[in-house]
Amino acid sequence: MGSLADTSVPHPFDPLSIEEIQTAVSVVKKAHGDVRFNVVSLLEPRKAEMQAWLEKPDTTPPPTRFANIVVIAPGGKVYDGLVDIKGGKIVEWEHMEGMQPIITMEELQVVEHKIRTDPRVIEQCVISGISESDMDKVYCDPWTIGYDERHGSLVRLQQALMYYRPHIDDCQYQYPLDFCPIYDAGKGEIIDIDIPKIRRPLRLEEKINYTAAAVEKAGGYRTDLKPINITQPEGVSFKLTGREIEWQNWKFHIGFNYREGIVMNNITFNDKGTVRPIFYRLSLAEMVVPYGNPEHPHQRKHAFDLGEYGAGYMTNSLSLGCDCKGSIHYIDAHFPTRSGAINTIKNAICIHEEDDGILFKHTDFRDESTIVTRARKLIIQQVFTAANYEYAVQWVFHQDGTIQPDIRLTGILQTYSILEGEDTHGWGTQVYPGVNAHNHQHLFSLRIDANVDGPKNTVFMADAVPSDAPVGSPENYYGNAFYAKRTKLATTGESKTDYNGATSRTWDICNTNKLNPYSKKPVSYKLVSREVPGLLPKEGSLVWKRAGFARHAVHVTKYKDDQLFPAGQHVPQTSGEPSRGLPEWMGDGTESIDNEDIVLWHTFGVTHIPAPEDFPVMPAEPITLLLRPRNFFTSNPVMDVPPSYASTPSQVLAGGKGVIDATDKFSKLAFSNGANGKSCCA
Amino acid sequence: MGSLADTSVPHPFDPLSIEEIQTAVSVVKKAHGDVRFNVVSLLEPRKAEMQAWLEKPDTTPPPTRFANIVVIAPGGKVYDGLVDIKGGKIVEWEHMEGMQPIITMEELQVVEHKIRTDPRVIEQCVISGISESDMDKVYCDPWTIGYDERHGSLVRLQQALMYYRPHIDDCQYQYPLDFCPIYDAGKGEIIDIDIPKIRRPLRLEEKINYTAAAVEKAGGYRTDLKPINITQPEGVSFKLTGREIEWQNWKFHIGFNYREGIVMNNITFNDKGTVRPIFYRLSLAEMVVPYGNPEHPHQRKHAFDLGEYGAGYMTNSLSLGCDCKGSIHYIDAHFPTRSGAINTIKNAICIHEEDDGILFKHTDFRDESTIVTRARKLIIQQVFTAANYEYAVQWVFHQDGTIQPDIRLTGILQTYSILEGEDTHGWGTQVYPGVNAHNHQHLFSLRIDANVDGPKNTVFMADAVPSDAPVGSPENYYGNAFYAKRTKLATTGESKTDYNGATSRTWDICNTNKLNPYSKKPVSYKLVSREVPGLLPKEGSLVWKRAGFARHAVHVTKYKDDQLFPAGQHVPQTSGEPSRGLPEWMGDGTESIDNEDIVLWHTFGVTHIPAPEDFPVMPAEPITLLLRPRNFFTSNPVMDVPPSYASTPSQVLAGGKGVIDATDKFSKLAFSNGANGKSCCA
Repeated sequence: MGSLADTSVPHPFDPLSIEEIQTAVSVVKKAHGDVRFNVVSLLEPRKAEMQAWLEKPDTTPPPTRFANIVVIAPGGKVYDGLVDIKGGKIVEWEHMEGMQPIITMEELQVVEHKIRTDPRVIEQCVISGISESDMDKVYCDPWTIGYDERHGSLVRLQQALMYYRPHIDDCQYQYPLDFCPIYDAGKGEIIDIDIPKIRRPLRLEEKINYTAAAVEKAGGYRTDLKPINITQPEGVSFKLTGREIEWQNWKFHIGFNYREGIVMNNITFNDKGTVRPIFYRLSLAEMVVPYGNPEHPHQRKHAFDLGEYGAGYMTNSLSLGCDCKGSIHYIDAHFPTRSGAINTIKNAICIHEEDDGILFKHTDFRDESTIVTRARKLIIQQVFTAANYEYAVQWVFHQDGTIQPDIRLTGILQTYSILEGEDTHGWGTQVYPGVNAHNHQHLFSLRIDANVDGPKNTVFMADAVPSDAPVGSPENYYGNAFYAKRTKLATTGESKTDYNGATSRTWDICNTNKLNPYSKKPVSYKLVSREVPGLLPKEGSLVWKRAGFARHAVHVTKYKDDQLFPAGQHVPQTSGEPSRGLPEWMGDGTESIDNEDIVLWHTFGVTHIPAPEDFPVMPAEPITLLLRPRNFFTSNPVMDVPPSYASTPSQVLAGGKGVIDATDKFSKLAFSNGANGKSCCA
Repeated sequence: MGSLADTSVPHPFDPLSIEEIQTAVSVVKKAHGDVRFNVVSLLEPRKAEMQAWLEKPDTTPPPTRFANIVVIAPGGKVYDGLVDIKGGKIVEWEHMEGMQPIITMEELQVVEHKIRTDPRVIEQCVISGISESDMDKVYCDPWTIGYDERHGSLVRLQQALMYYRPHIDDCQYQYPLDFCPIYDAGKGEIIDIDIPKIRRPLRLEEKINYTAAAVEKAGGYRTDLKPINITQPEGVSFKLTGREIEWQNWKFHIGFNYREGIVMNNITFNDKGTVRPIFYRLSLAEMVVPYGNPEHPHQRKHAFDLGEYGAGYMTNSLSLGCDCKGSIHYIDAHFPTRSGAINTIKNAICIHEEDDGILFKHTDFRDESTIVTRARKLIIQQVFTAANYEYAVQWVFHQDGTIQPDIRLTGILQTYSILEGEDTHGWGTQVYPGVNAHNHQHLFSLRIDANVDGPKNTVFMADAVPSDAPVGSPENYYGNAFYAKRTKLATTGESKTDYNGATSRTWDICNTNKLNPYSKKPVSYKLVSREVPGLLPKEGSLVWKRAGFARHAVHVTKYKDDQLFPAGQHVPQTSGEPSRGLPEWMGDGTESIDNEDIVLWHTFGVTHIPAPEDFPVMPAEPITLLLRPRNFFTSNPVMDVPPSYASTPSQVLAGGKGVIDATDKFSKLAFSNGANGKSCCA
C-alpha cells in the first residue's frame, strides 16, 4: 500500500493551489490595484452543497471554488472579498470598518528595523543602559497591540516587546527591556512608548544559552545516548489519494489553512464494510494566552496565536529525522505574500506511523494462554512558532477509533525584566537573574463539527456520581452504587458547561436516532479531557471580553456556514465589546441543539506558572485529550489486528501446536544474545 | 555503555535471592514443620540504618538481611515472622488472630476444581440451564470474599464468580452465571452459595471471541499493517550494576516484591556532578476496584488487586517484541510456592528506551535559525493479570527530570448476567447480549517516599486562582491577575486533600530548607495528576471503610518503617472497622508533616462506565501522571542533549557554515527517495 495519485482536479476541501492563489491575486489586483494581501485562502464549500457532493461525487458537480480574500488597501483600509476562481471574478467585496485582520510574518519582520532608528526608542535604550551605537543589538517581538483602549481599532498597531541581544546568537529572551514602543503599521512608525512607573534598567547578568557554543563551554554535549533507529522496510501502512488519507479503517481529508493550520474533514471509519461518518470537520480553531501580571501594559499580553497570527502562517518547515523519525510523508503549504507572490512552506505537515505499545493483552491465569497485540498510531503533525513559543500539534489516530489531539509546548518563555531583589508579587517567577517569566495560560479551542453517524447529534454531559440512596437503604445497602448521570444539553444556553474533576466529567456527542443494539445507548463519541483550567482573567476583564470562547470548557452551537473562528473573523484590536465569535453565535441561549447539526467548542489547555527549568528553552510540556467511541461499535474494533503472540488453552494443552508467534524479530536483548530471553510467553 | 556487573553480595534493596528464600523456608520448616508459605519477601532495611549505609557504603556494614514471612499453619492459623537469613534464625513469630493474608495464585487455581464436583453448585448450574455432564465447562474466578459480615474474617474464604465456557478456547467472561459459591479454604469445600432473588438463566447467545479462529471466521486478520522495526545497533544507553540502573543522570535501584511489583529505591539525579536525592522509594502500594452495582452480593466486588492478590505474584512473564520493542533487558522474579519451593517468573520486569519525539525546539522567526532536539525515555515495565483485567504498569523516566507513572488497562471486563430486556438501572452496561459489565473504578495508591534534596520535606497544595482584587481596582485594573495560591499542609489532618480541576490543583513536594537561587522558591517536585476521580462508594460504605486510603486524592504521613501498605498489611477479609493502614497512620490529624521525613500517598485512577467497545477484550485505556521538577534545577537540565539539528543566526548568515546536522539517517520519505524532502530546516 502507499501511493500518491495524481489528481489534477482539486478535491473541494483542498487548500488553494499555487495557481488558484495566483488567479485570485491577479483578479484582485486587476480590480483594486496595489493592495497588500493579508489572506488568500479557500472558502470552504457550503456544507449542504458539500454533503450533496460527498454523497454522490460521481454525479454531483463539485462545489465552486472560491477564494476568501483579505487585503489592506492604501490608507489602511481593510477589505474582505470573495473571488470565484474559475469564473475569474470578484463576487463579494466589503470594506471592514474598524477591523484589523491577522498579522502576517512579513509584518512581524518589519518593526524591528523601525525601532532601531527611532529617536525615542533609542533614548529609552540609553536610559536602560544600552549604548546608542549598540542599537543593532536591540530586538523586538512586535505583537499586535491586542487591544488598548487609548488607541482603539481604527489604526493598525503593534506593540514591540523589547530585548537586548548582545551577540546575534544569544537567546532572544534573556535581556528584556522594560518599555514598550507602539508601532503604527499604516504610518510605518513608532507612535508612542509605554514606559513603566518603576524603571528596570538592563541587567547584564551572565549569559545563559542553549547553542552548541554555550553547551561546549559548559562541558559539551552528553555522549552516552546510543542511536535508536526506526525503519519501515516494507513501506508505510497508510495510503494517500490527493490529500485524502486511508489508514486502519480511517479515512479523511487533510486540509491546511493560514489560520488553524491542519484541518481534517469528513472523518469516517470503516466499520466492517460500513463507512460511518464521525466528524465533518476537526481543527484547533483558536487559542488565547493570557498573562497574569496586572501591571500596565502587560494586560495587552494575551496573544490569540491563531486569530492574530495564524497557526498556518507561523508553521515550521519540518525535516526528516528531526521532527519525526521513521517513514514520513510531507505536505507543503502555499500562501500569498503581501505583494501577492507565493510563499511555499515546504513540509508544513508531516504524516507518519508509530508503534504504540500494547493494544490489548490478556492472559488466562489458569494456563498462561495469552494474546498480546501491539498498537499502531497515525500522526498528522505540524509545529508552529509563535515568536517565543513553539507548539507541536499532533493529531493522533488510534486503531480503536480514538482520536487524540496531542500538543507539546516548547520554545522559550515570554520574559520581562525584574530588578535585583524585586518582589514578583506572585505574578511571575524569576527564572534567571533579571528574567521574570509571567504566569500565563495556554487555552486552546478545539472545534468539533460533529457528524456521529450523521449530522443530527446531541451532546450530553456525563458525571460519575454516587447513588442518591443513603448507605443502609434497601436501594444502596452497602453504599457502593454509582452511575453516570447524563444531562442533555438541549439549548445553546444549557451547553455552557465547565469541567468538574470530582465527577470525572465528560461530554458525549450522541446520535440519539441510533442506539447501540447491545447497550441500547445512543452511538457516541466521548470527549475525555482532563487539562481543562478555567479562564483565570476575571469576568468582565479585557481577556474575558475578547476571548469569549474561553469562558467555558464546552459550548455547543447549531452549525452555520462560516462560523469557524470563535474569537471572531478578524481578531487583532477587537475590544470585546461586544464579544465577537462564539458569544454572538450562542445568541440568547434558546436555540435548540437537540438532534441538530451541531458544533462542539472545547476549551482546554494549561496554566503555566514558570520555573527555572523552563529557561532558556523549555523542555516540551504535553497536553492531550481523547475523543473515544463509546457505544459506537458493537464490540472491540481491533480484534482483527494481527497479534504478536496468541495461544489458546487448547493450544497450550497441545504443547504449543497452532500458537501464533509473530514476534518482531528485530527486537534484541540489551546485553546478550539470548541467554536472558525466551521466545515468547510459552 | 551497558554492562551487567556480577554482584555476589546483594544490595540491601535487592529482593531475596533464590538461595535466601530457600534458607528462610528451611529455617521456618525446621521450626514449624508443615506450613503453607504465603509470603517470603525481603524486609526492607530500616531507613535510618539504610541511609547511613547509603552515605558511606564502603565503610558502613550493610543492613542485616531479613525475610518477612507469612505462613498458614494447619488449622488455618496465620503467622507473621521474621527470619535473619545469615543468622539462620527466626527472630519474630506471631499468630495473627483474625487476619487473612494475601491470596496466592495457587489458591486461585484450586477452587475451580472444587466447584465442579460440589452437588449444590451442580444443582445451581442445572437450574441455570447447564447439563450436569457439562460441569467441566464451568469455570470460576475465585476472588477473596473481600468482606462479608455474615462470615467475618476467622475463616479463609473465597467467592467464586461463575462462568460457563462452552469450549475451552472461548472467552471466559461471555457467559456469566448468576450465583456465587463461597469456598472455605481451610475446609477445602464450598460452604454456601449466594443465590440472587431474580434468577438469570444462562443465555447462550452467539459466541464472540478474540481468538485467531474466531477472527478467521469473521474475515481474518487485517493485512495492511507494514512492520515498524526499532533497533539499537550500538546498544542501549543505560547501564546496570546489579539492580542499580544509570541512565541520563538518573540512578536508582529496581526492586520487586510479591505485593507492589516494581519498587524503585534511592532515586537520584546527577545535576552537573552533584548527585541529588529525589525519592527514597516509589511504588504503587495499593489499589481498589469498587463495582457500582448495589444488588447483593456485588458489593463484595471491590478487589484490592495489590493487597489481596499481589502485583508481583500476578505478574506476567514478558517477551521480546511482544510487550516491548527494541533492545530490552529483563529481570526475573523469584517467589516461594506454598510448599516452600521456588517459583521463578522469567522476565518479570522489562527495561528499555524509546524515542520520545521532540524534547525541545525553537526557531527564530527572523531567520529560521533552529534548534531541535529529540527526547529519549526509559521505561521500567511490568504487566500483571488480575483474573480478568490486565494492568501494564510503566515507570517512565524522562531526561528532564520528570518521572511518569503510566498505566494501561486492558484485559477483559468483569461481567455478570442480564436477562433479555432487563433494566441495568444505570449500574452497568449490556456490552453484549446477556453480558452486563458493571460500572467500576480503578483507584491506585501511589506511594511517594519523598527525599527531595534530603529527607526533610513539606507538601504544599497549589491552586491557580485569579487575584482577589476586582476588575477596575488599582491592583487588578484589567482583571488579568492570577497566581498560584500555595497552601502548606502542615499536619496529617491538613494533608487530607481532594482534587480540584477548576484550579488545576497540584501538590508540591518541597524542601523548604533549600531555595532555588533564582526563583527563591523551595526546590520541589510537583505532582501533576489529572485523572483523580473521587471514591464513589459513599462515606460509611463498606468500600469506604475498607479502602480508607482512597477517601482523598492526597494524604501525607510522617515516615515510619513498615508503613508500606495503605489498606493494611493483611487485606483480605478486613471489615474496615477500624480502617486499616493509612487511616490509622493519619492518627488524630495533629502530627506535624512540616519539614519532616514524609510520605505522600496519592490516589488516582479512572471511573469506568463500560461500553460494547470494551468487549470481549478491551483496547488499552491509558492513565498517567507526572512528577515534575519545579524550582529544582537552575535551568533546563537537557540543554546538553545532542540536537538533531542546530543552526544559529550567525551560521545562517554564513550560509550554513558550522550548522549541526545530526539528522537520523534511517528516517526516509514514505513514498519516494528524496523528491519531497530536504535535508533539514535550512
